[in-house]
Amino acid sequence: MEHSDSPGKLYLIPSLMGEVEPLEVLPLAVKKVLDLCDHYIVENEKTARAFIKRVFPAKNQSDLVFYVTNKFSDPLDYPSYLEPCLKGEHMGVISEAGAPGIADPGAEIVNIAYSKHIRVVPLVGPSSIFMAMMASGMNGQNFAFVGYLELDSAERKKKIRHLESLSRKTGQSQIFMETPYRNDKLFDDLMNNCQPQTRLCIAREVSLASEFIKSMAIQEWKKNKPDLEKKPSIFIIDAR
Amino acid sequence: MEHSDSPGKLYLIPSLMGEVEPLEVLPLAVKKVLDLCDHYIVENEKTARAFIKRVFPAKNQSDLVFYVTNKFSDPLDYPSYLEPCLKGEHMGVISEAGAPGIADPGAEIVNIAYSKHIRVVPLVGPSSIFMAMMASGMNGQNFAFVGYLELDSAERKKKIRHLESLSRKTGQSQIFMETPYRNDKLFDDLMNNCQPQTRLCIAREVSLASEFIKSMAIQEWKKNKPDLEKKPSIFIIDAR
Repeated sequence: MEHSDSPGKLYLIPSLMGEVEPLEVLPLAVKKVLDLCDHYIVENEKTARAFIKRVFPAKNQSDLVFYVTNKFSDPLDYPSYLEPCLKGEHMGVISEAGAPGIADPGAEIVNIAYSKHIRVVPLVGPSSIFMAMMASGMNGQNFAFVGYLELDSAERKKKIRHLESLSRKTGQSQIFMETPYRNDKLFDDLMNNCQPQTRLCIAREVSLASEFIKSMAIQEWKKNKPDLEKKPSIFIIDAR
Repeated sequence: MEHSDSPGKLYLIPSLMGEVEPLEVLPLAVKKVLDLCDHYIVENEKTARAFIKRVFPAKNQSDLVFYVTNKFSDPLDYPSYLEPCLKGEHMGVISEAGAPGIADPGAEIVNIAYSKHIRVVPLVGPSSIFMAMMASGMNGQNFAFVGYLELDSAERKKKIRHLESLSRKTGQSQIFMETPYRNDKLFDDLMNNCQPQTRLCIAREVSLASEFIKSMAIQEWKKNKPDLEKKPSIFIIDAR
């Protein structure tokens, strides 16, 4: 079979990770899709408008219609957000930072799209998780992204030890992250709970001019504490 | 600390997934890096030269130096491949398809680079694994890529059931792939070994004009067998 799709497509549009020249990290396809689409499903209208303005300044902002998914929106309304697609309009999903559907609420919209036979088209763009994995030197044949670690200190230590043990036993690299202002605390927890030989990759401010990515053993990191204060970072451990 | 890096950087350059206009899927940064670099670590010199020619036709091919990592090369030689970086030349790693370090041999070179204090810079580009995950509608807060499944039929069935059970218990989406000419066999194995309600995403020829991506329950796939014959595809299951 091939699919009998609705005329309008749903484009998944990766956004920028911070202050960077847009076409340095986004392909031309993103600009073309912004040209095609006037309807956008976003987490925050203001930042989505700013993103569109940066990538495609000539776009007429007064034509744009935004459908918001955030903690104040009602998921029961989401199916109606996709009505323009069914009428033949192309629509875009824009994430707050990085790629829709990865560590963000985009997946819910995508599932509704499939149930309505709307074609979903992912676009290329920066992803700190994926680019950190590329540059980690760790096992790229088998890796897991497990999101945010537990807030509770004892639970978090337990999770770190579990992830290290999982990596040792299965060879699977374990990727995780933290709210930026807690990065220093997470770094200390990793230093205090991992084996000295376990390799740790820290990827800070991926795709920006201030990018810092390095992989070394925990015992080396102990002598070289990086500056992670309030800076978005990805952590990967490989304990093979 | 900040790092005291060698003057030459090692760029990780994603390649194209097939016949596609290069700047539709690669940002300008890739072209700029090809301009900067004359030394490349690649799996296959011929395809790497063709890639450079497509993205940056004006590049003088006779200036280029290639260092090959394949089954005939000796890993003991790899540290010497990076000598140009230590002398101040920027170098590129180009994968056969997709992103270096992800399901490919690039990680080994990256680790040697870190041991020599060479700065590693990942560039944005198409990745079928990551773009399939974006477009899957599946759990993007917790997912694992487990590479190729076992060749042995009984072992493969066992692995499929294990991955489904893991996804059901932990909520972790499970991503895997197969050598393209075995896709139909894998599809049949999934149909015969997964629960009817388990969701399966199939992402075929990601980023190409012929791209096909769809997520639905196993019981729906049984009525809608896709054409995967010899076409690179990514499979994701979510049994939550």
